[in-house]
Amino acid sequence: MQIAVLLYDRFTALDAVGPYETLSRIPDAETVFVAERPGPVRTDNGVLGLVADKALDEVTRPDIVIVPGGPQPEVEMKNPAVLDWLRAVDATTTWTTSVCTGSLLLAAAGLLDGRRATSHWLYLDRLVPFGAEPTGERVVFDGKYVTAAGVSSGLDMGLGLLGRIAGDEYAQAVQLLCEYDPQPPYDAGSPEKAPAELVARMRAANPLS
Amino acid sequence: MQIAVLLYDRFTALDAVGPYETLSRIPDAETVFVAERPGPVRTDNGVLGLVADKALDEVTRPDIVIVPGGPQPEVEMKNPAVLDWLRAVDATTTWTTSVCTGSLLLAAAGLLDGRRATSHWLYLDRLVPFGAEPTGERVVFDGKYVTAAGVSSGLDMGLGLLGRIAGDEYAQAVQLLCEYDPQPPYDAGSPEKAPAELVARMRAANPLS
Repeated sequence: MQIAVLLYDRFTALDAVGPYETLSRIPDAETVFVAERPGPVRTDNGVLGLVADKALDEVTRPDIVIVPGGPQPEVEMKNPAVLDWLRAVDATTTWTTSVCTGSLLLAAAGLLDGRRATSHWLYLDRLVPFGAEPTGERVVFDGKYVTAAGVSSGLDMGLGLLGRIAGDEYAQAVQLLCEYDPQPPYDAGSPEKAPAELVARMRAANPLS
Repeated sequence: MQIAVLLYDRFTALDAVGPYETLSRIPDAETVFVAERPGPVRTDNGVLGLVADKALDEVTRPDIVIVPGGPQPEVEMKNPAVLDWLRAVDATTTWTTSVCTGSLLLAAAGLLDGRRATSHWLYLDRLVPFGAEPTGERVVFDGKYVTAAGVSSGLDMGLGLLGRIAGDEYAQAVQLLCEYDPQPPYDAGSPEKAPAELVARMRAANPLS
């Protein structure tokens, strides 16, 4: 089984690393980081580079594709190289997945038409013009399409998908290995839970862009 | 304020990326990934490279140092270049932090003697010979030393430290930005919560090594 993690300029690191940390532990899986051009790809704030070992045209039949998000999804949503690759590999994937605004890339490639999906809470509405039905859920399974909400949600998506692929017991072992027993010091991780004033301020001046 | 994230061969990606994703958002912070030699550093399973932009001797006075763990801490625990650097930068840090077995590197550098600390649950006992007092807590603050438990705990540590540095409201904004509202599909993230048989099996054959 091959797992391809797409990288592109200004992606958000945790979007990619969360699912990688769980799914790369599928027995006998080969995980490969892929980008339009091989080499280091810098994250949203520019301070970190992750290495894409393969170019898009070197990875043609992954079983799982993982598309991270970033604060400027508009750029890749207009990049034919990325959209063509997503359409091409999706034809044979077992699972096509995204985290955060990565779902907007899937949507722009025409892959979420008529499907329930999610995205970063600030970007949910942007799924609508592509025929997707946005939900407020943290992880959405619709057929082979799995979309997760903002940034950190890829951890939950990865574990959930791992359970479907390798079984509940195996997924629990990976959860224990990663000691994923979250204890955030605040309870402000969703627009429903965060202070209303903070949510309003973020909506008014999207800090991601 | 400068934040230095240490990389070394076979580190665990999420250990480094979790705290990076929150702490790099400290206003006016400069985050730098540092290793014995600059360039790509491969993760524990070898499938991902993160780029260290600076060599150890180029980063001499970081305000915060973050030490990730990995499945073979013994290697760096005997690496004088890393231990000397940790001791040298610790002399002037405001916060010296670790995730997972990264605490064993701090301990081996002599920095946790007499301090309460944590580590990956499979490695807690190894803190004792270095004079540290292991705890089962997920994030431990003892003076300027902050240690976190296994892999994913760096997210909680990062948010907690962010709150102390930039204030609760700012930390909540970053939590909301990262949509950190964890909903793991299983409740097996700690040895107290996971099935006893699974915990026993992992203790018998440490899957990290």
